[in-house]
Amino acid sequence: MSQSQIRHALDIKREDDFAAWYQAVIAQADMAEESGVRGCMVIKPWGYGIWERIQRVLDDAIKSTGHDNCYFPLFIPLSYFAKEAEHVEGFAKEMAVVTHHRLKSEGGALVVDPDAKLEEPLVVRPTSETVIGQAMSRWVQSWRDLPLLINQWANVVRWEMRTRMFLRTSEFLWQEGHTAHADKDDAMVETLKMLEVYRSFAEDVLAMPVIAGEKPENERFPGAVATYSIEAMMQDGKALQAGTSHYLGTGFAEAADIRYQDQEGQQTLCHTTSWGVSTRLIGGVIMTHGDDDGLRVPPRIAPHQIVILPMLRGKDGDAEILEYCESLRKGLCQLDAFREPVRVLVDSKPGKVAQKRWNWVRKGAPVIVEVGPRDMENGKVALLRRDKLWREDGKTDTDFQTRDDFLFGAASLLETIQANLFEQAKKRRDDNVRCDVADFETLTAHFADGKDKPGWVELPWARPTGDALDKIVEQLKSLKLTIRNTPMDQEKPEKPCFFTGEEAVETIYVARAY
Amino acid sequence: MSQSQIRHALDIKREDDFAAWYQAVIAQADMAEESGVRGCMVIKPWGYGIWERIQRVLDDAIKSTGHDNCYFPLFIPLSYFAKEAEHVEGFAKEMAVVTHHRLKSEGGALVVDPDAKLEEPLVVRPTSETVIGQAMSRWVQSWRDLPLLINQWANVVRWEMRTRMFLRTSEFLWQEGHTAHADKDDAMVETLKMLEVYRSFAEDVLAMPVIAGEKPENERFPGAVATYSIEAMMQDGKALQAGTSHYLGTGFAEAADIRYQDQEGQQTLCHTTSWGVSTRLIGGVIMTHGDDDGLRVPPRIAPHQIVILPMLRGKDGDAEILEYCESLRKGLCQLDAFREPVRVLVDSKPGKVAQKRWNWVRKGAPVIVEVGPRDMENGKVALLRRDKLWREDGKTDTDFQTRDDFLFGAASLLETIQANLFEQAKKRRDDNVRCDVADFETLTAHFADGKDKPGWVELPWARPTGDALDKIVEQLKSLKLTIRNTPMDQEKPEKPCFFTGEEAVETIYVARAY
Repeated sequence: MSQSQIRHALDIKREDDFAAWYQAVIAQADMAEESGVRGCMVIKPWGYGIWERIQRVLDDAIKSTGHDNCYFPLFIPLSYFAKEAEHVEGFAKEMAVVTHHRLKSEGGALVVDPDAKLEEPLVVRPTSETVIGQAMSRWVQSWRDLPLLINQWANVVRWEMRTRMFLRTSEFLWQEGHTAHADKDDAMVETLKMLEVYRSFAEDVLAMPVIAGEKPENERFPGAVATYSIEAMMQDGKALQAGTSHYLGTGFAEAADIRYQDQEGQQTLCHTTSWGVSTRLIGGVIMTHGDDDGLRVPPRIAPHQIVILPMLRGKDGDAEILEYCESLRKGLCQLDAFREPVRVLVDSKPGKVAQKRWNWVRKGAPVIVEVGPRDMENGKVALLRRDKLWREDGKTDTDFQTRDDFLFGAASLLETIQANLFEQAKKRRDDNVRCDVADFETLTAHFADGKDKPGWVELPWARPTGDALDKIVEQLKSLKLTIRNTPMDQEKPEKPCFFTGEEAVETIYVARAY
Repeated sequence: MSQSQIRHALDIKREDDFAAWYQAVIAQADMAEESGVRGCMVIKPWGYGIWERIQRVLDDAIKSTGHDNCYFPLFIPLSYFAKEAEHVEGFAKEMAVVTHHRLKSEGGALVVDPDAKLEEPLVVRPTSETVIGQAMSRWVQSWRDLPLLINQWANVVRWEMRTRMFLRTSEFLWQEGHTAHADKDDAMVETLKMLEVYRSFAEDVLAMPVIAGEKPENERFPGAVATYSIEAMMQDGKALQAGTSHYLGTGFAEAADIRYQDQEGQQTLCHTTSWGVSTRLIGGVIMTHGDDDGLRVPPRIAPHQIVILPMLRGKDGDAEILEYCESLRKGLCQLDAFREPVRVLVDSKPGKVAQKRWNWVRKGAPVIVEVGPRDMENGKVALLRRDKLWREDGKTDTDFQTRDDFLFGAASLLETIQANLFEQAKKRRDDNVRCDVADFETLTAHFADGKDKPGWVELPWARPTGDALDKIVEQLKSLKLTIRNTPMDQEKPEKPCFFTGEEAVETIYVARAY
């Protein structure tokens, strides 16, 4: 039996229908489901457990860079937005609006009480620049109060017409950092520091290689002076913007009146930043690491890194096997991987071991261990690595180890799996970036309809602006392409700008995107 | 100088105006502030840090009792509520309702777009029984799926007319557990298990003594068969309901169609429960432990348990002092208190030490340590315990210890402070429960207007229901009193029911309440 004849755990393969495969992974790994409420999903324990891991690790990084968590109101009075014309324009005004504060019974039915109309409509926050700006205006008085470094974990709502679980939902969970600084230099240092926090988090924790760079003018956050992003390549070759960091200049400070008295006693406008990542990261993890057997969760964000399956037979020996598994769990929990205690589950729920094994394969637990009566007698365990599931001959690559060898190597095994997932993803990404496209004809051919995984194209760029940029954006749009970003710290390319023929100053990535 | 002449850190004393004192603590400890958005507060870093500690410790307890975290939609379609007549009636229908999904510009102003009216209004969740019930109906098929044990950390909105920070706000943060069971017995075990989780969390973690008991019929959660609560006594003698656990019977299961196939193949209704605590707990902590110098945070929920203040003079020696403080911090962080690493902050922000010391006193950091050049030379630290701030002679009770002695004793010091705060609160509570009230006249006199801290009264109770209960509730209402709960596991009182004269089956607590 060859690799291609393997009977995979999912009914649908990535190469056959990537979008349907994505939905299948979410369903089969029991991560989330449609809620019945328009555009909103229910995040189930395995999906939410991954989000909790993301929160925990990223929150530590946000705090260790000096930021404090706060909580701001869900509702933003309409008038707050009116101050931010450019900002609101950019959000296309698709927001959920609360207009009433009471229901009443009418003819046995429950209806909105027309007498309970709010004087001022309240917008459910699509992002919190406006309401946090108001608070900053109160909190910042003198240069001694700066920098002001705030973060919030919250739900936000953007009324999306077409939704896709984790990638684009009307309600989603995220963190949004908001900071105020004395001058541009300090604000830019912050903007780029958080971009780097996101890059290292994506690569070191999510095992998802990304390009950190600046977005072109037309892709900036509404009202921002500069927007930076991390961009990841999904397995279908499309780009996913996985996090953004914005330098907002003094525009938001002016609208919210965030001023400080400087050391010379002058009232001076602050320079502000904002930056965020969301549950969209989970979509990125799925499309980076998933395979035809389901999800593969990088160990650093796996709610359970090792799942132990006792082979129970409803017989006398069961108690002993459970005890053996429990002692194995305790031994593993004593270990540290990635400087945290190893997370282990003994899954002793009713059900057949084979079925449970494949459930955990679909969920993507990094290591699955089975223990039967014979294993116990021989002091052994049967080990399955989720990142190396199949042997060449098409059978699952089960490894039998002694209990002691397994315990001794478990922490380093998790670190190996983490590294392997990153290497696989990085190789795939690098293999799918083309740098030799010289003219628009070649670009058109490369992205011709039906072509498999065109990936990204790297192009020399003179950083055109205004009308010249708009024209290019339109040209690219005809191929369903967008400029993703211009990577940080790059060397000046030798070739001239792909679009204008002028001297290039940098390179850009052009790709289809989520 | 006597105790009464101490110049306290707050302008206002508890005994002079408890409500104003409460607001002063929140402001002076920099915990939260009005947001400018009706009924919503901004939770600032010190207040939110306490909430994060509450979340972390309680979440561990919720998970270790077998519950999984999920996330459900913020919005609930109006029709979901229509199914739950009794439930909705109880919520007085004061809910935030989203009716539109778009804004538009009109004459330069931003307005709600009348063309973007939703077909069905969406209610911002006041609690999630209805929407989680819908999910449970999908998730529960067979007896093998039970019990289903779910928890959610989320923001909820109830349109409150009169709000008070942390105690009653339109938007608040909470956790809500929702579980489905095969039968009443199992659901009742769950309901009481979570009541006990709350009791032990309140007492062992918040150092807040509580009475765990059942609410009377008239105080039940809308639609519940039985409601249990933990009740804490605040320093003004009023009761605070600090957490609730509900046995919902089969009513919610019937409305949402949560049925399972039992082992005999019969379709059977589930029995459900729900239970929650909220940011209200922080209000409870303030009113349990605060004093005339501000907040006192129990060490287990203090974001920083020990704050080190280097005495900096803008001179050459500063670097050495900072280094000494930093080494002290590292030493302390190696220690475990309450089975977690000790949390330590070196506050080296600009400002005078005396001012910073009193800021931390007002915030209620459990231990404040000052280090000046002379302390450093002598290898000493100056130590202030927040729970024992003043000496008999009216001076602050600063203790000078050697660095090594302090390090050696720091973890046990934190445990001592935690225990001391609990003992102080418990003594105060016990001293303010009166058990000898024999008739309504005495009760009336006891709660006469202007009387200082009437506290709680314990009364024998025959558990009257229906009209008899309603009459008693009205009677009590005339004294602004409510029945708090009937404690668990109590002995049958000897005296007859205070209200009906019938044979009593238990005792109740009667009190004024938040």
